[in-house]
Amino acid sequence: FLGSSAAVANDKLIELSKSNENYVMPGKDYTSDNYSKMDQINTKNVKDLRVSWTFSTGLLNGHEGTPLVVDGVMYINSSFPNNVYALDLDNPGKIKWQYKPKQDPAARSVACCDLVNRGLAYFPGGGDTPALIINNQLDGNVVALKAEDGSLYWKVENSDIKVGSTLTVAPYVVKDMVIVGSSGAELGVRGYATAYSVHDGGQVWRMYATGPDEEIGIGDDFNSANPQYGQKGLGLATWEGDAWKIGGGTNWGWYAYDPDLNLIYYGSGNPSPWNETMRPGDNKWTMTIMARDVDNGELKFGYQKTPHDEWDYAGVNVIMLSDQQIEGKDMKLLTHPDRNGIIYTLDRTNGDLVRADFLDDTVNVWTHVDMETGIPVRDPEYGTRMDHKGTDICPSAMGYHDQAHDSYDPEKELFYLAINHICMDWEPFMLPYRAGQFFVGATLSMYPGPKGDRQNYLGLGQVKAYDADSSSYKWSVMERFAAWGGTLATAGDLVFYGTLDGYFKARNSETGELLWKFKMPSGAIGYPMTYEHNGTQYVALYYGVGGWPGVGLVFDLDDPTAGLGAVGAFRELQNWTQQGGGLLVFSLD
Amino acid sequence: FLGSSAAVANDKLIELSKSNENYVMPGKDYTSDNYSKMDQINTKNVKDLRVSWTFSTGLLNGHEGTPLVVDGVMYINSSFPNNVYALDLDNPGKIKWQYKPKQDPAARSVACCDLVNRGLAYFPGGGDTPALIINNQLDGNVVALKAEDGSLYWKVENSDIKVGSTLTVAPYVVKDMVIVGSSGAELGVRGYATAYSVHDGGQVWRMYATGPDEEIGIGDDFNSANPQYGQKGLGLATWEGDAWKIGGGTNWGWYAYDPDLNLIYYGSGNPSPWNETMRPGDNKWTMTIMARDVDNGELKFGYQKTPHDEWDYAGVNVIMLSDQQIEGKDMKLLTHPDRNGIIYTLDRTNGDLVRADFLDDTVNVWTHVDMETGIPVRDPEYGTRMDHKGTDICPSAMGYHDQAHDSYDPEKELFYLAINHICMDWEPFMLPYRAGQFFVGATLSMYPGPKGDRQNYLGLGQVKAYDADSSSYKWSVMERFAAWGGTLATAGDLVFYGTLDGYFKARNSETGELLWKFKMPSGAIGYPMTYEHNGTQYVALYYGVGGWPGVGLVFDLDDPTAGLGAVGAFRELQNWTQQGGGLLVFSLD
Ligand SMILES: O=C(O)c1cc(C(=O)O)c2c(n1)C(=O)C(=O)c1cc(C(=O)O)[nH]c1-2
Ligand SMILES: O=C(O)c1cc(C(=O)O)c2c(n1)C(=O)C(=O)c1cc(C(=O)O)[nH]c1-2
Repeated sequence: FLGSSAAVANDKLIELSKSNENYVMPGKDYTSDNYSKMDQINTKNVKDLRVSWTFSTGLLNGHEGTPLVVDGVMYINSSFPNNVYALDLDNPGKIKWQYKPKQDPAARSVACCDLVNRGLAYFPGGGDTPALIINNQLDGNVVALKAEDGSLYWKVENSDIKVGSTLTVAPYVVKDMVIVGSSGAELGVRGYATAYSVHDGGQVWRMYATGPDEEIGIGDDFNSANPQYGQKGLGLATWEGDAWKIGGGTNWGWYAYDPDLNLIYYGSGNPSPWNETMRPGDNKWTMTIMARDVDNGELKFGYQKTPHDEWDYAGVNVIMLSDQQIEGKDMKLLTHPDRNGIIYTLDRTNGDLVRADFLDDTVNVWTHVDMETGIPVRDPEYGTRMDHKGTDICPSAMGYHDQAHDSYDPEKELFYLAINHICMDWEPFMLPYRAGQFFVGATLSMYPGPKGDRQNYLGLGQVKAYDADSSSYKWSVMERFAAWGGTLATAGDLVFYGTLDGYFKARNSETGELLWKFKMPSGAIGYPMTYEHNGTQYVALYYGVGGWPGVGLVFDLDDPTAGLGAVGAFRELQNWTQQGGGLLVFSLD
Repeated sequence: FLGSSAAVANDKLIELSKSNENYVMPGKDYTSDNYSKMDQINTKNVKDLRVSWTFSTGLLNGHEGTPLVVDGVMYINSSFPNNVYALDLDNPGKIKWQYKPKQDPAARSVACCDLVNRGLAYFPGGGDTPALIINNQLDGNVVALKAEDGSLYWKVENSDIKVGSTLTVAPYVVKDMVIVGSSGAELGVRGYATAYSVHDGGQVWRMYATGPDEEIGIGDDFNSANPQYGQKGLGLATWEGDAWKIGGGTNWGWYAYDPDLNLIYYGSGNPSPWNETMRPGDNKWTMTIMARDVDNGELKFGYQKTPHDEWDYAGVNVIMLSDQQIEGKDMKLLTHPDRNGIIYTLDRTNGDLVRADFLDDTVNVWTHVDMETGIPVRDPEYGTRMDHKGTDICPSAMGYHDQAHDSYDPEKELFYLAINHICMDWEPFMLPYRAGQFFVGATLSMYPGPKGDRQNYLGLGQVKAYDADSSSYKWSVMERFAAWGGTLATAGDLVFYGTLDGYFKARNSETGELLWKFKMPSGAIGYPMTYEHNGTQYVALYYGVGGWPGVGLVFDLDDPTAGLGAVGAFRELQNWTQQGGGLLVFSLD
């Protein structure tokens, strides 16, 4: 029965994802473009946008992701211990149900970057299985809750916190499976993605980023269109000895899915440890844009953006699917603003590299990307190695783009990118691997990029509208502390985003002009979503500063190199916002 | 120099307290009526009130009190560890200064009722002393911060947490003194009020609720107008042995001051322990409305409302000063909605009892108050004693009124009362006194009063407009969970208040009609304030559920008798709101 109920469930989810009333997955639909066709709120009236209602989650660690809305019910995720709240939108003043897991507090001490969670998944029901809300818990457990009443339907352990493996990624439902990633590359965790059956949590497939071909899902036609990206055997051959077993390549970012191609896309993260001297080789398939057959996990293509990473340019960032004409040719594309300072556009059918543009003209680690081989060419001055203290490296380890969920307007063919503007000094050191302990091997100092205010530690971010066809930016604006959470684009010619210092902003998506802003209780590291209820368009955004840039505030740290260097870069943030955790919902009414 | 600078400082404070732009003390001015003459926001336009800006304090315990505003700067108090934030109202998106004390975490375990704080005091500067913000810390320290930059000016220890004495009361500036109360009557703390010099924190006077006359401030003319209230010697004679030394009578509520009479008014709290069998006698001067000469602390009059308390009807509630005609005669009054279910109005010049009305017709512990003696007459059925299990006692230990700061409209001559509607069963038990340990001796079950929904544990509060002259209520409305924090009245014919489940409401103060409501991130236990900035009227209210009714939510308790009985009464609250901590500021713009 799996086959047919799976197809029905997928059809239902796709249908829901296309409606205005529902918001059923990260990025709104499988293209992950976080674009809404609604235009009730638009450039003319957005100045009148006001808070309609609010909800505090009762938790203070950073709030990432965005809520889901299905059939008039909103599902809210929250930071550790990852409570879930269901609110009936006809009366959001009362909690319909709540799920408050008791988690092993040990999970707290092995999370790298605050105790965040990037969102929930929804399964619309199918076969004998009811509609489900799926929640990834920091302690590595995946739980499926009945959407109706929040009761536990199944639970499965995905990650073992004893070896430092946590779970912050939003689960992702495709057909009757839920895809779950992994975290912990700062502790030597070998990354993997797993597909579980939504019916009972049974494992359908699990694929790793490193190791033997079978475990990576590499078959005969892997990278057949682009053999220069590398083919068989490299998950072992590009590592010294057993280093691949503690080699990182987790995936804690975002997914996209193409139902026609039956491929799921995501990026694998940084190799472990950060100290490059300790792991000679390309370290495949970390830092890779992966396209897998969703039914069996097989890797159709893999393009490694940063071979042998020297900077923690974890490659997990958002991937958005678009169909555009490039140089006059209709193409099925995926676009990925990477942490290494380059925004990549690939032919998503076969992995062909179509565009590789700098996210900002201040990137200095690369001179360019060789479009034939796909290999970025380095400036050794800004490399990191034991015999060289790297200074003024741009981007910093946070990348020029981190976990932000961006958006894409298919009418304008523009991507709205939430960009970091942070550079760094990097001093490596050697250290032994110990299971469940941090395994990094570098001391970082971070500070604003060249366009920022280095005196006052402001100007740490940008927002830009990117045109892939012309490899250019339609507009870009500086931000005081960065729009860490990402953007929402709407047919109202608007782009929305929240900033780390707590401003929710709306700009004209054509021109970048600031049309509206609102000071939220605490800084935002989630991304906005929009939905319609009873004919009214609402826009919602979590507040709750945290994430990697917020660790100084969250854990009350002072040493500028603490928090893997984040404390120094964001030293001024505490003078603009304090912790909080909740949701604001806006409308014109 | 003290004398003259004191007078100047007081004049300055009084002047500020009368302006619309400033809000310089709890209850707005020395009458403590929390009434504003502003009418920019009024019954016609309040429906358009909207959130102007917000601020999260980064703390989750209950947020009581209300912010201060002086000269365009807002000062925000918060729950433990009692951070203070100053925000420039021209740019409230940035923190002007912050004070984050490191407190002894042991204070947490001896606080009775969540880790709350009721607000700050402002001293406008005088002599060589700069303008100060004074903050009471839960760990018993009083700190004076320079209003300009938040730096510490002086610090003094008022309460010893080792014996269970904490500090939650808002400090109160009169002349060049700051009056500070005490908490801990649930741990056998002997209550006192202390006046410190604002110049250096030196003690000016300290007066106790129990013990020898000198230590209570009882002189020859004490209660001269009402000798039947009791005179000398009773602080010892109404106690068995040394019981007065651990006899309670703390004061953690609110103050009022009459500059012409030079008297400061406040109520002393419950005798300790709650179990009445363990402390025979009237237990004077617990449960007493006190009027003290502010210069030397001498007690001018004291009226004990609940002699030999059997129910924890701590007598610390708000006292509001008004000048009204009663039965045609101009009188200087004080009005005090007491926890014991009776609202008292006294002649504030001499303590004469003018009115003693039930807060609700469901009060059953008393039949009436003898207006000659001032003694309330009991119905023994609803008493508590070792040989009697009291059931359906109304009010409960929370009283029909607790820490709410009410308001009074001098035009309408109406008091806006935030009333509880909770009854209880009470089972006493004996226990030994141990310093620093809870010393209560009773197990409580609480539930809605007769007008509430006892099936669903809703209908736990009311809001009422009280007319003292006619001893009647102009209007009253039920509330789902009570308006625990109190009310604000304005010349816009409005009364504002927040509810435990997180609704901020505005009613027509003449009729009680609901004109506007807004769902805040978390429940409110503070009271609203209003101020003008650049010509615009703003209304502000803390969110952050907690206090005694919120302990179930705050400390994750399930046993209905836990939290001294609060958990059972408020079992439904968790389905309406979660913790939070911050401020919402509203305007018509
Ligand atoms: O390597 C990993 O497994 C891992 C996990 C996470 C995470 O789970 O949040 C982050 C990172 N790395 C990381 O490199 C990073 O920059 C980062 C930022 C954040 C955040 O939420 O702000 N998480 C993470
Ligand atoms: O006897 C005391 O010293 C004392 C202190 C406090 C306090 O400091 O908050 C409360 C009480 N008692 C009390 O009886 C009470 O009902 C109460 C409610 C609250 C609150 O903030 O909700 N505090 C207190």
